[in-house]
Amino acid sequence: MDAANVAAAVDADRLWADIEANGRFGATDDEGHGRTAPTGSEANRRARDRLVAELEAAGCTVRVDAVGNVAGRWTPSGVDPETPAVAAGSHLDSVPSGGIFDGPLGVYAALEAVRAMREADVTPKRPVEVVSFTEEEGATFADGLLGSSVAAGERSVEAALTLRDAEGRSLAAALEDTGYRGEGRLDAADWDAWLELHIEQHTELEEAGVPAGIVGDITGITHLAVEIDGEANHAGSTPMAGRRDALAAASEVVLDIEQAARELSGAGGNEPTDPAAVATVGSQAVAPNATNVIPGHVELGVDIRSTTYASMETLVDDIRASLARVERERGVETSLERGFDLAPTPMAERCRQALRRGGERAGVETLELHSGAAHDSMYVAQVTDAGLLFAPSEDGLSHTPAEWTDPADCAAATRVFAAAVAELAGDGL
Amino acid sequence: MDAANVAAAVDADRLWADIEANGRFGATDDEGHGRTAPTGSEANRRARDRLVAELEAAGCTVRVDAVGNVAGRWTPSGVDPETPAVAAGSHLDSVPSGGIFDGPLGVYAALEAVRAMREADVTPKRPVEVVSFTEEEGATFADGLLGSSVAAGERSVEAALTLRDAEGRSLAAALEDTGYRGEGRLDAADWDAWLELHIEQHTELEEAGVPAGIVGDITGITHLAVEIDGEANHAGSTPMAGRRDALAAASEVVLDIEQAARELSGAGGNEPTDPAAVATVGSQAVAPNATNVIPGHVELGVDIRSTTYASMETLVDDIRASLARVERERGVETSLERGFDLAPTPMAERCRQALRRGGERAGVETLELHSGAAHDSMYVAQVTDAGLLFAPSEDGLSHTPAEWTDPADCAAATRVFAAAVAELAGDGL
Repeated sequence: MDAANVAAAVDADRLWADIEANGRFGATDDEGHGRTAPTGSEANRRARDRLVAELEAAGCTVRVDAVGNVAGRWTPSGVDPETPAVAAGSHLDSVPSGGIFDGPLGVYAALEAVRAMREADVTPKRPVEVVSFTEEEGATFADGLLGSSVAAGERSVEAALTLRDAEGRSLAAALEDTGYRGEGRLDAADWDAWLELHIEQHTELEEAGVPAGIVGDITGITHLAVEIDGEANHAGSTPMAGRRDALAAASEVVLDIEQAARELSGAGGNEPTDPAAVATVGSQAVAPNATNVIPGHVELGVDIRSTTYASMETLVDDIRASLARVERERGVETSLERGFDLAPTPMAERCRQALRRGGERAGVETLELHSGAAHDSMYVAQVTDAGLLFAPSEDGLSHTPAEWTDPADCAAATRVFAAAVAELAGDGL
Repeated sequence: MDAANVAAAVDADRLWADIEANGRFGATDDEGHGRTAPTGSEANRRARDRLVAELEAAGCTVRVDAVGNVAGRWTPSGVDPETPAVAAGSHLDSVPSGGIFDGPLGVYAALEAVRAMREADVTPKRPVEVVSFTEEEGATFADGLLGSSVAAGERSVEAALTLRDAEGRSLAAALEDTGYRGEGRLDAADWDAWLELHIEQHTELEEAGVPAGIVGDITGITHLAVEIDGEANHAGSTPMAGRRDALAAASEVVLDIEQAARELSGAGGNEPTDPAAVATVGSQAVAPNATNVIPGHVELGVDIRSTTYASMETLVDDIRASLARVERERGVETSLERGFDLAPTPMAERCRQALRRGGERAGVETLELHSGAAHDSMYVAQVTDAGLLFAPSEDGLSHTPAEWTDPADCAAATRVFAAAVAELAGDGL
């Protein structure tokens, strides 16, 4: 078996045809670069149907688990079916008006790896499993990474199935409606290793002119729900001195959060403590939210990330200090709830090494970076060795029809990926 | 004729019964202190029906104009019906979950003035017209002061009738549905003078322990629609240094606006340039408004007021400067549209004098203040002499079921008001 042959057997046109065909399900524009294919949608059903058909055409045995995770397993002749598999993939669901690469590139790259291994006539020592996880985006149910959280045993099947979308439809009903409520639980702990290919969603690869990035650590993420209570009052008859304006207080907090993350990450040109640290106030709700009423209540949704958990703690502490300050100086009341909290996740050195050698064997340059975005690999890494490879995103855009990865970059990254899958499946060759 | 007798003839219990009875239409709580009676609602229809019945019982001839303004005219025997009337009143509509005093106090105080004049056997030289304007609040149609803007000729009947509520129902349909689409146009220019009694919606009277406040100037109001465009991007994979965060930029603008108004009004303990100046960012909309996405677009609704138009201009200039600064420093784009713009309105000295003497004759202390809130009297003052009297608001609250004016304060302010109406109707007595 020669992983270089596998890389060479990757068919760039076939891969591109897969991405384009998948992108037509839920297409939002004539150019076919935008799609809306959330979990439980007709578009998502059709995307899954096509994947199942292509998996079967590639000689894979397909199963669907109770939360709709799809896995197509290729067990080469002579391989004991009980041997722990090498699994690879990503997800097919999209955000509303998302792009065609975020998720599907990794699923079809994994399928292309199987096809390439078969066409290169390699005989791996392990089964290879192509996986599409349910509801990675969190656009419809829960916070995202849903299917992988169940596969990693971090969330129960029952808890997942009773989640509801904004219209009150349960995940169980959404899967039944679209024919993807299967049985059992895909268990990532059964896998010998896992690899995922995903678009970078930032510009590091683009700026370096390198088509494949090997992720060292996936960022940790904390979400904070902050509430600020002041006093709603008449905007005309309440003098400036008598106000407890919740929006003005919130504005100070927004700027404090930004400043704390800028300092920590060296964004102002200072010496960085942690270049990977970021903090964002992404959402803000104001009540009563009328031009002529002083805001009495504001809710902020804060997103904090770093590859170092201590930095995340520092930022949370900074935000608490900011809230204490506006309480003291503005007479408002505040609260902070820490919701979603995922520690940073290092990728397995064994998988990173396989990806590095994949780049060498494919003759494709790679670089090492971290992931600021969450990926299914975070959950999979809790129970087995996991690796994550990035392909470039033009201008760093994602979750928009403008999301774009050049076909040549898709193919180059997939060659690296396929060679790494082949190496892991060949047990080091 | 003796205006002191008129003040003495004001029946505090009858007035209180009117306020309570009117408050039950659209009542939102068991205590009967909250009500929802917007224009076109069943509650508003019932409130109008009751007013019409009470006007007729008091000997007034009632007419309803094309935009639903209700006017009940008492023409004393011996008075030429063509003599320009003294008009007095306010409005019956409420915001959702508003209080029972904001508007109705002035309407029923005007009716009580007619009743008291009749019971005191005074013989005025002019007709007295009790007026309830349509849609003062702007909670359902347009920006507020709707009926008075039509009566002052500032807005045409046709323009008013085609306004639509959030459900798409026109004002014409709302009035027809509730039986208050009348004919013609109530013309405030026909009045010799106008007086309004309204709750203060602030604490100046309460703090001074004085039950009646004579308004010198009604604040001017400018509304600004500000938009800030940055770049929406992934909250995790976009480093702090590469961001164009529209919410962070907006937060600076919110604080700049607050600071500009604090300085101008002396809120920080500095020497005030204009104590009446206020500026408020009351509304804010963030897009995409997801915790894990850097905000790309923010809209701010800004309310600027002062009794001095030059101060309003200064504040608008300060906001333009703030926007220019965030454009320069943060690479965002901004726009500012100036919508609603009403210059400050001085009340007529003749009417203020009548209110001062009303206080003396009623034996009720008064003080002079300005109004930070807009009132129908602003439009009426464009075409005739207008005066505005305030009654205290507990804790300055309004537009909430917690809005409260003590029955004794309602009666005291109404005694001042009735004496002033009598003086103006008696042509100086």
